[in-house]
Amino acid sequence: MAKLKFVKRTSNKIGLPPGTLVHIGEKKIDKVRIRIIDYDDQQLTEKEVQNIEECFPFKDEPTVTWINIDGLHDVGLIEKIGTWFDIHPLVLEDIVHTGQRPKLHEFDDYLYIVLKMLYYDDTEAEVRDEQFSLILGKNYVITFQERVGDVFEPVRERIRSGKIRVRKRKADYLAYALIDAVVDNYFAVLEKLGEKIESSEEHLLNNPTPAKLQTIHSLKRVLISLRKSVWPLREVISSMERSETSLIDGSTAVYLKDVYDHAIQVIDTIESFRDFVSGMLDIYLSSLSNKMNEVMKVLTMIATIFIPLTFIAGVYGMNFAHMPELEWYWSYPVIWGIMIILVVGMLAYFKRKKWM
Amino acid sequence: MAKLKFVKRTSNKIGLPPGTLVHIGEKKIDKVRIRIIDYDDQQLTEKEVQNIEECFPFKDEPTVTWINIDGLHDVGLIEKIGTWFDIHPLVLEDIVHTGQRPKLHEFDDYLYIVLKMLYYDDTEAEVRDEQFSLILGKNYVITFQERVGDVFEPVRERIRSGKIRVRKRKADYLAYALIDAVVDNYFAVLEKLGEKIESSEEHLLNNPTPAKLQTIHSLKRVLISLRKSVWPLREVISSMERSETSLIDGSTAVYLKDVYDHAIQVIDTIESFRDFVSGMLDIYLSSLSNKMNEVMKVLTMIATIFIPLTFIAGVYGMNFAHMPELEWYWSYPVIWGIMIILVVGMLAYFKRKKWM
Amino acid sequence: MAKLKFVKRTSNKIGLPPGTLVHIGEKKIDKVRIRIIDYDDQQLTEKEVQNIEECFPFKDEPTVTWINIDGLHDVGLIEKIGTWFDIHPLVLEDIVHTGQRPKLHEFDDYLYIVLKMLYYDDTEAEVRDEQFSLILGKNYVITFQERVGDVFEPVRERIRSGKIRVRKRKADYLAYALIDAVVDNYFAVLEKLGEKIESSEEHLLNNPTPAKLQTIHSLKRVLISLRKSVWPLREVISSMERSETSLIDGSTAVYLKDVYDHAIQVIDTIESFRDFVSGMLDIYLSSLSNKMNEVMKVLTMIATIFIPLTFIAGVYGMNFAHMPELEWYWSYPVIWGIMIILVVGMLAYFKRKKWM
Amino acid sequence: MAKLKFVKRTSNKIGLPPGTLVHIGEKKIDKVRIRIIDYDDQQLTEKEVQNIEECFPFKDEPTVTWINIDGLHDVGLIEKIGTWFDIHPLVLEDIVHTGQRPKLHEFDDYLYIVLKMLYYDDTEAEVRDEQFSLILGKNYVITFQERVGDVFEPVRERIRSGKIRVRKRKADYLAYALIDAVVDNYFAVLEKLGEKIESSEEHLLNNPTPAKLQTIHSLKRVLISLRKSVWPLREVISSMERSETSLIDGSTAVYLKDVYDHAIQVIDTIESFRDFVSGMLDIYLSSLSNKMNEVMKVLTMIATIFIPLTFIAGVYGMNFAHMPELEWYWSYPVIWGIMIILVVGMLAYFKRKKWM
Amino acid sequence: MAKLKFVKRTSNKIGLPPGTLVHIGEKKIDKVRIRIIDYDDQQLTEKEVQNIEECFPFKDEPTVTWINIDGLHDVGLIEKIGTWFDIHPLVLEDIVHTGQRPKLHEFDDYLYIVLKMLYYDDTEAEVRDEQFSLILGKNYVITFQERVGDVFEPVRERIRSGKIRVRKRKADYLAYALIDAVVDNYFAVLEKLGEKIESSEEHLLNNPTPAKLQTIHSLKRVLISLRKSVWPLREVISSMERSETSLIDGSTAVYLKDVYDHAIQVIDTIESFRDFVSGMLDIYLSSLSNKMNEVMKVLTMIATIFIPLTFIAGVYGMNFAHMPELEWYWSYPVIWGIMIILVVGMLAYFKRKKWM
Repeated sequence: MAKLKFVKRTSNKIGLPPGTLVHIGEKKIDKVRIRIIDYDDQQLTEKEVQNIEECFPFKDEPTVTWINIDGLHDVGLIEKIGTWFDIHPLVLEDIVHTGQRPKLHEFDDYLYIVLKMLYYDDTEAEVRDEQFSLILGKNYVITFQERVGDVFEPVRERIRSGKIRVRKRKADYLAYALIDAVVDNYFAVLEKLGEKIESSEEHLLNNPTPAKLQTIHSLKRVLISLRKSVWPLREVISSMERSETSLIDGSTAVYLKDVYDHAIQVIDTIESFRDFVSGMLDIYLSSLSNKMNEVMKVLTMIATIFIPLTFIAGVYGMNFAHMPELEWYWSYPVIWGIMIILVVGMLAYFKRKKWM
Repeated sequence: MAKLKFVKRTSNKIGLPPGTLVHIGEKKIDKVRIRIIDYDDQQLTEKEVQNIEECFPFKDEPTVTWINIDGLHDVGLIEKIGTWFDIHPLVLEDIVHTGQRPKLHEFDDYLYIVLKMLYYDDTEAEVRDEQFSLILGKNYVITFQERVGDVFEPVRERIRSGKIRVRKRKADYLAYALIDAVVDNYFAVLEKLGEKIESSEEHLLNNPTPAKLQTIHSLKRVLISLRKSVWPLREVISSMERSETSLIDGSTAVYLKDVYDHAIQVIDTIESFRDFVSGMLDIYLSSLSNKMNEVMKVLTMIATIFIPLTFIAGVYGMNFAHMPELEWYWSYPVIWGIMIILVVGMLAYFKRKKWM
Repeated sequence: MAKLKFVKRTSNKIGLPPGTLVHIGEKKIDKVRIRIIDYDDQQLTEKEVQNIEECFPFKDEPTVTWINIDGLHDVGLIEKIGTWFDIHPLVLEDIVHTGQRPKLHEFDDYLYIVLKMLYYDDTEAEVRDEQFSLILGKNYVITFQERVGDVFEPVRERIRSGKIRVRKRKADYLAYALIDAVVDNYFAVLEKLGEKIESSEEHLLNNPTPAKLQTIHSLKRVLISLRKSVWPLREVISSMERSETSLIDGSTAVYLKDVYDHAIQVIDTIESFRDFVSGMLDIYLSSLSNKMNEVMKVLTMIATIFIPLTFIAGVYGMNFAHMPELEWYWSYPVIWGIMIILVVGMLAYFKRKKWM
Repeated sequence: MAKLKFVKRTSNKIGLPPGTLVHIGEKKIDKVRIRIIDYDDQQLTEKEVQNIEECFPFKDEPTVTWINIDGLHDVGLIEKIGTWFDIHPLVLEDIVHTGQRPKLHEFDDYLYIVLKMLYYDDTEAEVRDEQFSLILGKNYVITFQERVGDVFEPVRERIRSGKIRVRKRKADYLAYALIDAVVDNYFAVLEKLGEKIESSEEHLLNNPTPAKLQTIHSLKRVLISLRKSVWPLREVISSMERSETSLIDGSTAVYLKDVYDHAIQVIDTIESFRDFVSGMLDIYLSSLSNKMNEVMKVLTMIATIFIPLTFIAGVYGMNFAHMPELEWYWSYPVIWGIMIILVVGMLAYFKRKKWM
Repeated sequence: MAKLKFVKRTSNKIGLPPGTLVHIGEKKIDKVRIRIIDYDDQQLTEKEVQNIEECFPFKDEPTVTWINIDGLHDVGLIEKIGTWFDIHPLVLEDIVHTGQRPKLHEFDDYLYIVLKMLYYDDTEAEVRDEQFSLILGKNYVITFQERVGDVFEPVRERIRSGKIRVRKRKADYLAYALIDAVVDNYFAVLEKLGEKIESSEEHLLNNPTPAKLQTIHSLKRVLISLRKSVWPLREVISSMERSETSLIDGSTAVYLKDVYDHAIQVIDTIESFRDFVSGMLDIYLSSLSNKMNEVMKVLTMIATIFIPLTFIAGVYGMNFAHMPELEWYWSYPVIWGIMIILVVGMLAYFKRKKWM
């Protein structure tokens, strides 16, 4: 069952001055991995580096540089990046504190964007999230993920292939392409979740077991937390689009509008799922009533048929000295006749009432 | 039962660069069909062409040209149109990706509008949708549909007849006329849906079978998805009306306002249907309770009448050696008398309680 | 029971060019009736005319002219008015198409206002509506109603009496007075509906029959459709008030504000009624449960008292050869004693449980 | 039970020209009472007058004059005030028509404010309201109440005492002080209502009688009507604060902001009460289910224990000629043994199921 | 159970002039405690003073001064501060009246901020609040709390340590740090509340006792009142951020934005908790139905099996003189055979129905 993970355990953080880097969240990877891709339309460098310092020279190159950090627990490293690229301490704090709402903060020299990457965990039928931070500077993009493995491989492929648009454009287009990849992935997650919902619904009407109720509620909860992750996205992207920063080129705006449309579609789909799952709850509850009705009908029919018959049998089981019927020869078969007529009458009554 | 088709299967699309044309959606037609109508108030040309290139010369004519494409799977063709008419790649991508929300994108030289055409499928009591894209340029309108067969025949008739307004006006009026035809068709769909709802409601109170519940829920779902298709329309049309583009003439605005009113009416009607269908659910559930009450009353009456009588019979079926009543001559008829009085008393009690 | 009249049957309209006059709605009157009142503070002319052409000369008079048309099916007549007074074809179309939402359209030379007149139909406990269109020009007001008989008699009286404000003021004040009369009438309708609701609620708790549920639902539906008729009114009047047209004088604005207040009060009252009727549904449902509880208690008490007694009687009805109690002299009275004690104990238990 | 007093009976008003003074509402007092207080920081005059004309000379004095009218049925008097102080006829109409929503109307020379004064009626556990109208002019405040007795005594005391702020300030501060007194009184009403709600909730769980349901619903209704009275207040006060009229001094704005905060608090509290009362309904309904469960358990236990025993007794009450058990010597005690074991087994089963 | 403490008892306050200092709220501390910290980046003074007058000289020092008052009942002291620092009487009134909604009032020389400090009371599983007022002047911050003991110790530590940012910055940063500490503490409270909710949910499905319902409702209530405390916070902080006062430096805005993000997260979490707790209510109610179903099934199975058997036994308990079966030798075992077959048949039927 989905647990209440609404609150990240932050107790160990309380009281520290703002801007103190403390990694809040599961440590999902052992060693931080740093990858760097540097390109313009002429050339491309891609490598994995051991020391973050190797990335620093790229800062002032006119080429587009994408530094990707997998793993957030090495706060020293994050701090070095912060110092070199002149990032505000509060931004660094948010990067390592995985519990941020999706948001956009604008600074003079860079934009800071936080998103959630979502993964559908098939085995537990749950949606897991990972915090994805992106810093967009003049000629560079720095991204921070909680662990190795992401949804950006296609973007890397496009950069490597060198044929297409991304290589001709600036860092803002790279940032767009990454955000687009994140949002595209939401559709994949929703597709799987939709299948799960559909399969949960089948047989619900016929077999409303308590376990089904559990499933409905855990789906509901997944949808609530999805909504929390996705809803602010809309605001983030539309702020980027409307932003007056010189970091985002006018020609990128139409691409952002496209991502915005996708974000709205994701939100719409989540809302539809919520409506759908509420409907499942209604079906569950009324199926319970239906089953109860059915049980009660069986009880009532049995009781209604046999209780009067038992009474008749009881009457002729009495031991009064003077009960003339007892002596009559045809009494016994007549009584059986009466009882059979009674049963047939009852059954006809139930038929008419549509209980059978 | 209505299936969960909220998410278009897009998995094969994920990771492709933005602007890549991949047809997402069912292939509803074998061969793409291209029709062209070109007119001004003096002359009219209407033909079906085999190669899209035949349409290209019309681009710079001062006459109004309407190019209609039925079938979206031939992405090469779409790409050619895109190149010739200078359409943004993202627009082309949206045209072939049938899962768009209704929307309006404004560009310098053209407007891009996406709507849903709705059809009521009588046999399965479902509403099907089809994506309709419209590009409004200076002197031309290009429309894209998923399959042959649409709601625009009356518009074509009006163009052909040549008597009326449409021939005297520009491409913006043609675009309006097409959108108006789409929205008018919504009323026809709602009419049929309303009939379905009404017929579903009858007898609901008397006969709350589980199948009825299924029907209520599939109506609910149809309404949810209708709402998703129609709600954004309002925004689309009002953006067109307020738009400062030179592509839309001031005198067309009053017509757009009229379509806007219709869109609001459609939305209002859908909301009323939703309220109505929720009411049906309440009736369903309380009918279940009513039936249960009725069943319980029968059981209780039978049990209340016969259980005490059976007890009395049981008492005089005991085999004690010394039970003086057993020997008395009038005991048996007296007991019958007592039992009849008991029954009459019970019935009177039930009458007073209004159980009968 | 209130029918689903949310959608006006418009199928025969679909596909016609915009601005085509087709009367949509019931034909509620045989012959169109045209009445004209023309006045200024000095003089007054009131007459019923046969030909609409008789009204035309008043168009350019400086006096205030009120032309009232009862009956919408004579589209030729409407068209003539449209031509003479230079009304936009879409407005004429809306006038004869009785399914409009209340709205205000501003044109350079006139305002077009649509409202709903409501009537409470006592016999069927339903609220009926009639479309009321008003065109406010420089010196004239033209009104269109579906049938003879309206709520404007008091306004006419005030014009005739000549003593009061209305005669000294312009056409905009007349338009205000008519709208005010329509809104005032809503209060009368709500008063009657309130009485109906109150009388429906009585005894609901004691006697929750399915018929009561039907009543609750038809009240709910009436309120939904009322809301649809009245809600947009607020917007209409506030648009008039804020309008920058020269057709409405500054001194009339305070009167419009007053009507606006009334419209808000009407909406508030409808919302309160809705809350109230929802409450009735809750009461209905919990009364059902209460009744069920009561039935179950009777069953349980009877069964709990007599089933053990019957068992005891059954024990001593057994035919074992060696049952010493059967032979004892006091057995029979002792058994009766035991049984009476049992019954008294049970009753005490039920008393304590507050079941009796 | 709280009655549906949502609609004031206004039938006798319909059709009258706007601005006609008709007193709508209960006549709560016999004779209209007129009190006048006139002060500046130097002097104070307070008297009760018989003729409204005695108040007129104060109009142009530079001192602050507060004219208070208790009783609204003397429309002649209201009309005289209207003429002398040059009040718009629609304002006069609203003053005597007690069914106004709280509102603020701004005129060039005065502001017109309507509020509701609330009283908690202990005996019927209901909240009654009274319409309070206030006209704020340059140097005067005129207030209209439905009856003698109000919440303004403390304000009068402060004026009389002469020590404090109110005497040094203008009419706008007096208006503020009166509104503040009205809003303060809401807290007193809410306090009493809160006590009523709390006392209604106790024992609800143990004893869900239908009368309790009635109470819950009448509380709900009281809260709905309270909300209607208080909700618009927020808008009224914030309009006053933001108003650009010269009638309100800048230094009074901070006081109005304070009242605004109080109004928000009142609204918040009403919302909390509504949530609370909805919760009570949930408790009521689930208590019903609980009771039903308990009744059913008793029935089931009794039936489950005794029906099998009765069957066993019945078997050995059969009269077959050849039933060997009947003759055995120990049969009877053995049967008793079996029955006792059965009962113990059943009880253990119920224990395990937690039914006992 | 959580009590209805929505309304602070204010009856003794009603009628007093605005700006009168009356302490409303529990007196949570005996003696007021005054602490003062004065610092700039060079030096630091920290002491506890007996007389408020000792604080006054700091007012015009260029150093940052933080005066903290624990205990609100000594209104004389509050008044002295008010006079010396020139605080508006209404602000003083709000400081001692503990029932304020979180809010921000801007004055020329200072800002007044009210927040709620929350504490989770483990023993009663309740959330308690305490009113925290903060006055931010040019070089000073004055804070008022209801009792000794707060969440600001870490802030004091940071000031004392002298190494970090806070010492280099102005009073606005101190105010920020205090607000940040309050909001940070909300996360700790939510964490504990989340644990309580989770532990309440376990076993709910298996054991829906009325006590559980009580718990759910008191959780609901706690969440309602939390929401009331936290919701306005968002507005308060965003007003500070957007404020044009010279009291807040531009460089502090980014810190306020950070607190704003936290406030949104707190609100989001509360909403999620509310959704979660509603879900618990659904589970509770459907578990009740489930239990009832189970009880009914047991009853029905017992009755359905034994009532027909008892009837058969009854038939052969009749005393008719002529019942041929009674004499047959194998009758008795045959009857047993029939009865066993009946039982097996029934059980098979129940199995098929999935009742067992």
